[in-house]
Amino acid sequence: MKKTIAVDMDNVLVDIEQHFIDWYEKDFGVRISKDKLIGIPEIEAFPNQEAVKQFLYTPGFFRSAPVMEGAIAAMDFLLNKFEVYIVSAAMEFPQSLSEKVEWLNEYFPSIHWKNIVLCGDKSIIHCDYLIDDYIKNLDPFKGQPLLFSAGHNANHTHHKRLNNWNEVLDYFNSI
Amino acid sequence: MKKTIAVDMDNVLVDIEQHFIDWYEKDFGVRISKDKLIGIPEIEAFPNQEAVKQFLYTPGFFRSAPVMEGAIAAMDFLLNKFEVYIVSAAMEFPQSLSEKVEWLNEYFPSIHWKNIVLCGDKSIIHCDYLIDDYIKNLDPFKGQPLLFSAGHNANHTHHKRLNNWNEVLDYFNSI
Repeated sequence: MKKTIAVDMDNVLVDIEQHFIDWYEKDFGVRISKDKLIGIPEIEAFPNQEAVKQFLYTPGFFRSAPVMEGAIAAMDFLLNKFEVYIVSAAMEFPQSLSEKVEWLNEYFPSIHWKNIVLCGDKSIIHCDYLIDDYIKNLDPFKGQPLLFSAGHNANHTHHKRLNNWNEVLDYFNSI
Repeated sequence: MKKTIAVDMDNVLVDIEQHFIDWYEKDFGVRISKDKLIGIPEIEAFPNQEAVKQFLYTPGFFRSAPVMEGAIAAMDFLLNKFEVYIVSAAMEFPQSLSEKVEWLNEYFPSIHWKNIVLCGDKSIIHCDYLIDDYIKNLDPFKGQPLLFSAGHNANHTHHKRLNNWNEVLDYFNSI
């Protein structure tokens, strides 16, 4: 039986940092550098934090986000070798639910609906691996946690870190 | 730490058999008896099966379904004693995702968004108990499977059966 991998969406498949930066520039004419997001909750990098929070509730925000560099090719490989589940903590933003499914259908059309999980807390998800940018999801995980680098997690050191999709490929080629 | 229970929606929290019957009567003027649904996939009880399948893709179908008898009082009890997760295989019908969350907010407002999981295949969900009407969800489950009676599962005998929410209460009071 194939081993199972749970893959997060925002900051893993989806370049949501870039999307925050682009939407902020569009609304406020100020371009925040990605460096500013390092080591802090991403929202704190923006002068108008309330406006950035509001993006999360805005129809179209999640649907229009860009795909993370290298994700499509790497996922092609993983989907062949493993049973891959997409596991996204989307439930706080109900308008994002159908947008996230549509987004996946656009960028990863070979992912079956059976393998998509939209949830709140991820603690009841059981797979062999979890690729995620949040410590709160990785800490209670019973399988092998894999920390995908994002600005906000730059200072965390207690999980195996993968900096980008090339490093994800190298990791799964080496095991 | 509280034990965890995963609770299905359709045919467990939601009286979806009744809803099929009501919508069919509304559209075709024919009232199918609940007895007709016993021992067969529910859709096969209806003369026009294609129309019933179409209900599942119709906006408003899931949002307007009635709550199962006894579910609200029994869930009040369970929510106090256990960590309860709602786990619904909704992903085949993307329009149902936000409707299911809205439905839960109406009938079970004390269920936190963190405890809602909308998925396809439930095989990666790990809890101590799963209350579900489908053998395909209960068979691979690693905890204690609990078969909630529905017409279509009447002939299955290989899981602990609970016929209604009173029996769910009795079961969890006795363990």
